[in-house]
Amino acid sequence: MTAHTGDVETAEAALADYGGRARAAMLDALPDGSPGPWLYDLLRSYPSRPGKALRPTLFLATCEAFGGSAESAMGVAVAIELLHNAFLVHDDIVDGSLQRRGSPTLHEDAGLGLALNAGDALGALAQRQLRLSIDSLSGRVASQVLEEFETMLMRTAEGQATELGWCRDGVQDVGPEDYLDLIMHKTCWYTTIHPLRVGALIGAAVGVADGADGTQPDLDAMIRFGFHLGAAFQIRDDILNLTGDDRYGKEIGGDLLEGKRTLMLIHLWEHARGADRDLVQRFLTAERATRSIEEARRVRALMDRYGSIDFATAYATGVAAEATTAFEIAFAPALARDPNPGADAVRSMITYMHGRLS
Amino acid sequence: MTAHTGDVETAEAALADYGGRARAAMLDALPDGSPGPWLYDLLRSYPSRPGKALRPTLFLATCEAFGGSAESAMGVAVAIELLHNAFLVHDDIVDGSLQRRGSPTLHEDAGLGLALNAGDALGALAQRQLRLSIDSLSGRVASQVLEEFETMLMRTAEGQATELGWCRDGVQDVGPEDYLDLIMHKTCWYTTIHPLRVGALIGAAVGVADGADGTQPDLDAMIRFGFHLGAAFQIRDDILNLTGDDRYGKEIGGDLLEGKRTLMLIHLWEHARGADRDLVQRFLTAERATRSIEEARRVRALMDRYGSIDFATAYATGVAAEATTAFEIAFAPALARDPNPGADAVRSMITYMHGRLS
Repeated sequence: MTAHTGDVETAEAALADYGGRARAAMLDALPDGSPGPWLYDLLRSYPSRPGKALRPTLFLATCEAFGGSAESAMGVAVAIELLHNAFLVHDDIVDGSLQRRGSPTLHEDAGLGLALNAGDALGALAQRQLRLSIDSLSGRVASQVLEEFETMLMRTAEGQATELGWCRDGVQDVGPEDYLDLIMHKTCWYTTIHPLRVGALIGAAVGVADGADGTQPDLDAMIRFGFHLGAAFQIRDDILNLTGDDRYGKEIGGDLLEGKRTLMLIHLWEHARGADRDLVQRFLTAERATRSIEEARRVRALMDRYGSIDFATAYATGVAAEATTAFEIAFAPALARDPNPGADAVRSMITYMHGRLS
Repeated sequence: MTAHTGDVETAEAALADYGGRARAAMLDALPDGSPGPWLYDLLRSYPSRPGKALRPTLFLATCEAFGGSAESAMGVAVAIELLHNAFLVHDDIVDGSLQRRGSPTLHEDAGLGLALNAGDALGALAQRQLRLSIDSLSGRVASQVLEEFETMLMRTAEGQATELGWCRDGVQDVGPEDYLDLIMHKTCWYTTIHPLRVGALIGAAVGVADGADGTQPDLDAMIRFGFHLGAAFQIRDDILNLTGDDRYGKEIGGDLLEGKRTLMLIHLWEHARGADRDLVQRFLTAERATRSIEEARRVRALMDRYGSIDFATAYATGVAAEATTAFEIAFAPALARDPNPGADAVRSMITYMHGRLS
């Protein structure tokens, strides 16, 4: 893997452009109504907070890479980002998180009931936004896009269920492959695979309709690329949860207290011996409420001793290298057109989402 | 209002027929997948429990009344009932309910996280089911049906938010009109108005396409009828929560402990005087966790003393009478065709849903 000079700058420019427009369009698309303080104001809470808008950026850049225009696909980008916000609201409830993007989580602010309800409403608005936005597409492509959304919703629910099930039932025999399968469902499908697939679908369809050389995408190749891109991102996110600073916006170590089976915890479980192993085992099988911060600190220290964070860092680097290879294959039809700034933007996101971990 | 002889028998036959077929079709439509114990098995939990399937019954009967066929509209009926089950799962979490249809609620059974996630997945499956089911309709009618679903989702979220907001903020100045406005949003839209409107829309559209005398429905008249039908039902449901027996399947008095502003509690607040009023005020403004069962029993006794339950019972009877008038107007185009068993089934539901309260 050759790091592309200027990748980070390219990615940041893409996020500012595509992502910034999608975020503005999302805030415009959110309706006002009654009751304000108990519903409509809450819908704006997470969308108004600073967010990178990774998903709409990947979607819009891919759409342009395959011959579409970001402007005419903006509505779908908004649907993608609204749904992400709906997920965040529900995830924060389920995880009992206190902070999101540097402020209290919605359920901390408004109470569980109003937050859960607002999450449901955000999901409904995402569906509505999606329906209105695909009106101009042919019936066949519109159906495909809806089907992609439905598939993504179920894959995400499956991943979420597996992660919660592992924690709830104190499941211990989880290896790195199980973890990768988990994040394939929980994170990659909605963060990367879905935006890439739908972006390529719509871009190619619009490109053909406009008489441009709409290049047919290989949607299976998008799964492979999206998986590696999303996995590098999720592993980095997991590491940041243990090592990050205030800019990260969530409570540090929250994943650890929840007993989330991250690559680091899995590595530690596989390598710890003697009393260390006993501690990790107790930690893995404990009820959430019985895990102390002191105990979490000891597990965290063991991760340093056993090289678990170094392991995960190296793993993410390998996965990101795979993502680069998979990108060139998945975007080959688009790269036939040169220059292709949309494709360049997507490529730059590999370095950006993998991040500088060291 | 003249009670139609045999109404209850007609209603029960309609529920057994339309409702029974919809429930069976729903169970067939639920996918299997992995993880089973943490997701796909949970999706079947509420749909497998005994339920009356009121909403698909109203929908299918209305569809046939306006010239459609229940068989070809079954997919939409399934979407309606799946969504109802999704609502129940989330409502039970929000209300902290222990029992649903005679068994532990899903979150009691599986934990909050897995239940919330299963509710999200049921909602996604309802949307998928809806999309697949309207494929055979014209583009215009299909769009209208999707729009009706979206409207219903937002009305329901608004009602849910208002009820939760009243409780959370200890709102006291709530009159009977506020209560009716609340249940218009929270209950009526998805229980009656939406099934009636979509049933009429699809029935008329299919009727026209088939060369039958598809009679154009007046969708505004359906709001009026649906509101009165749904209000009679909700008031009865609220009363049963205070007076019902085991067959009801929820904890008796749960609404009271939550501080839900029912017609009975509103009546009591408006009429109680002296020390009684102080007690009700304390009860209305208390935090949920601080309400004791003993205090709830005293409020319940005050409701008898001040005639609050009699008031609500009489109110529901008046609303049900209005529903009968509104039915004849809303279904006038369909009733031009005689006999019309679908319309008869809907009419019979008025008596059934109002119930024998005395």
